[in-house]
Amino acid sequence: MLGRDELITVDKALELLLRHAPFKIPEEIALPLEESYGYILSGDIVSPEDLPSFSRTTVDGFAVNAADTFGATEGMPAYLNIKGEIKMGDRPQFVLNKGEAAKISTGGMLPQGADAALMFEYTQQVDEKMIEALRPVSPGEHVIQAGEDAKTGETILRKGRRLRPQDIGALAGLGIATVWVYKKPKVSIISTGDEIVPVDRPVNPGQVRDINSYTLSGLISGAGGVPERTGIFKDEYEIIRNVVRNSLKDSQMVLISGGSSVGAKDMTAKIIDDSGEPGVLFHGVSLKPGKPTIGGIVNGIPIFGLPGHPAAVSVCFGLFIMPVLEILSGLAEPGFEKKKRTIMAKVTKNVSSSPGKEEHVGVKLEEKNGEIWAAPLLGKSGLITTLTQADGTAVIPLRKTGVREGEFVEVRLF
Amino acid sequence: MLGRDELITVDKALELLLRHAPFKIPEEIALPLEESYGYILSGDIVSPEDLPSFSRTTVDGFAVNAADTFGATEGMPAYLNIKGEIKMGDRPQFVLNKGEAAKISTGGMLPQGADAALMFEYTQQVDEKMIEALRPVSPGEHVIQAGEDAKTGETILRKGRRLRPQDIGALAGLGIATVWVYKKPKVSIISTGDEIVPVDRPVNPGQVRDINSYTLSGLISGAGGVPERTGIFKDEYEIIRNVVRNSLKDSQMVLISGGSSVGAKDMTAKIIDDSGEPGVLFHGVSLKPGKPTIGGIVNGIPIFGLPGHPAAVSVCFGLFIMPVLEILSGLAEPGFEKKKRTIMAKVTKNVSSSPGKEEHVGVKLEEKNGEIWAAPLLGKSGLITTLTQADGTAVIPLRKTGVREGEFVEVRLF
Repeated sequence: MLGRDELITVDKALELLLRHAPFKIPEEIALPLEESYGYILSGDIVSPEDLPSFSRTTVDGFAVNAADTFGATEGMPAYLNIKGEIKMGDRPQFVLNKGEAAKISTGGMLPQGADAALMFEYTQQVDEKMIEALRPVSPGEHVIQAGEDAKTGETILRKGRRLRPQDIGALAGLGIATVWVYKKPKVSIISTGDEIVPVDRPVNPGQVRDINSYTLSGLISGAGGVPERTGIFKDEYEIIRNVVRNSLKDSQMVLISGGSSVGAKDMTAKIIDDSGEPGVLFHGVSLKPGKPTIGGIVNGIPIFGLPGHPAAVSVCFGLFIMPVLEILSGLAEPGFEKKKRTIMAKVTKNVSSSPGKEEHVGVKLEEKNGEIWAAPLLGKSGLITTLTQADGTAVIPLRKTGVREGEFVEVRLF
Repeated sequence: MLGRDELITVDKALELLLRHAPFKIPEEIALPLEESYGYILSGDIVSPEDLPSFSRTTVDGFAVNAADTFGATEGMPAYLNIKGEIKMGDRPQFVLNKGEAAKISTGGMLPQGADAALMFEYTQQVDEKMIEALRPVSPGEHVIQAGEDAKTGETILRKGRRLRPQDIGALAGLGIATVWVYKKPKVSIISTGDEIVPVDRPVNPGQVRDINSYTLSGLISGAGGVPERTGIFKDEYEIIRNVVRNSLKDSQMVLISGGSSVGAKDMTAKIIDDSGEPGVLFHGVSLKPGKPTIGGIVNGIPIFGLPGHPAAVSVCFGLFIMPVLEILSGLAEPGFEKKKRTIMAKVTKNVSSSPGKEEHVGVKLEEKNGEIWAAPLLGKSGLITTLTQADGTAVIPLRKTGVREGEFVEVRLF
């Protein structure tokens, strides 16, 4: 009726987009290990050596031959001669014979002839040259064997993994000082609308400031992309068409934000269609807020026309932009971030919803009697201060007409 | 028995540290709004103006006087004369009289005389100059009133809040282009140990690479701090004492990593005590892994001696360093991050534990029948490859001797 195509569901819209995955293969770069946190591996990491390269203890105590301690008790200890002390970082200069022990610290290298370690707590010093073992140890106890952590040629981390601090530690342990990762995808944000003014200018009646490009920049940074705010442009075909053309040249994704009027949306759709194949994949989603969202692909580059409502921008980011950005980043398991950010909570009051629309309601989380509750935020979806109070949005599925107080809802955390 | 002080519980250790909070007040800096994501506000944000500055619609449709639509139905529509169209960003040049409507897009400024908006869907075009209203609207419907979002002088965001994308959007909406935040705290990491070699060097028997300073750097970055790896130093009093002295000058926190032997730990404690008041607060915690952790304060600066085990480093970071770092960062609600990263999960098999120790067991999360289960990772705590497989650690509390298969455990996500 308004020149819009028929609305499609959120799931169908996402499916249309993902059918074109993996879009373009991201560029690979080599980074010093200390700068690699949060980047995604562009290849498997294979251990170049055995780790540890020697058998080491995991406790402070004595390196022993386990057989020498069998049957030892406090009442009937085993007597062991102290052969020497193994200093950290040293290769032991002696061999442990039957009935001998060597003082050793956590991480110390086991001498030849030793196969276990006995903790200080279970020894008693007799004199300078002898200890009593008050308890038996079994072979291999409190010892990490050479190669037990990683063997030469073993795959330690797989391509497509986002590096966590613990992973970087593992790479350090293997002596991998430079790591190949995917370059973070650049996302161009084009703000459009005749009523939009820059943040540092006063607003005249009828005008509003450019809110969404700032929110989008933060969301993109947080999701591992590199945002580029290209500026604010008038709702004119030639102008927007040129900015889009330039952005498509050096970006992995393009977001056209604003242009809230019906005419502007239709123009955005036309520009996407005119920019390359296949163009617009969907125009209008059965989603609230976020109905006027446009999604498309142009020559392998995902491109979105986003609604003007700040609340809709957050919702559309989580539903469409985030999964696409994860794939563009080279992540092997996209969707994990969303899963991690989804919790179940009981809703604090009845919320009604129109059937035939997936509705996202801003909620604040509260703890009551050890349970997590989601309190729907009053206020209209266009309010930006409501958004600052929200911890996330509660999802009321397509076919439901609402949720009742105490009912469980899925909450997507911001 | 080994010259160590008596072990204290994790809770008591943290309490001793936090008694000295807020440590030093972090420095304030002014940042351009687009660089402020993840920073913490150093003052309340008060709205400098009314937002919106004019009453605007939240739908595409017609601006109307609600009274003109009362009683309208599809069978008995209300007829309204089209007075004109309000373009985005324009201040309407006419007043709406009784029986008149004006075409308007989402976000458009309401003309004088209008008090509601009627969606296109509920209108029928009669001719170029007239529409039928098929449904009544109430006064204020689909309208955001001037000042409804924020009023001049109203506190929008409070000091000590970490800025999220939605918050940055709100600041943009208010025209706040520069924001005062706390500088991120610098954390010096001092690697010690005669057996520790840099990552890019081959290891000789008995030596290991500097793993923990890399893991710590990632953990600190992720928690909003700025890590500085100072280097690897020999376990000698004068050397470490000097590095600590220099680090205390320009850091907000100091971490001494490694020096696993008992003697090295005692030396670390002595250096902390000799560096200033009050010095060591605890030396040894009833925690596994992480027992040899040292915590102290030197002239208002928190300083830690950390165990050498990579697994212990992750655990100690979550329990002690993270809460202290949050306070140092100026965060108003420390502990929220930990809460967000704590989930309950059923354990997949029996795990035994010594009573009198809080034990953290590396776990991998699995989904079974829609429930989350925590699978304890086999392998010794000293293994770094085990850590790469872990999603977090399951906590077995101080007084428990273990958990049974199917029992709920608290899991702290990495």
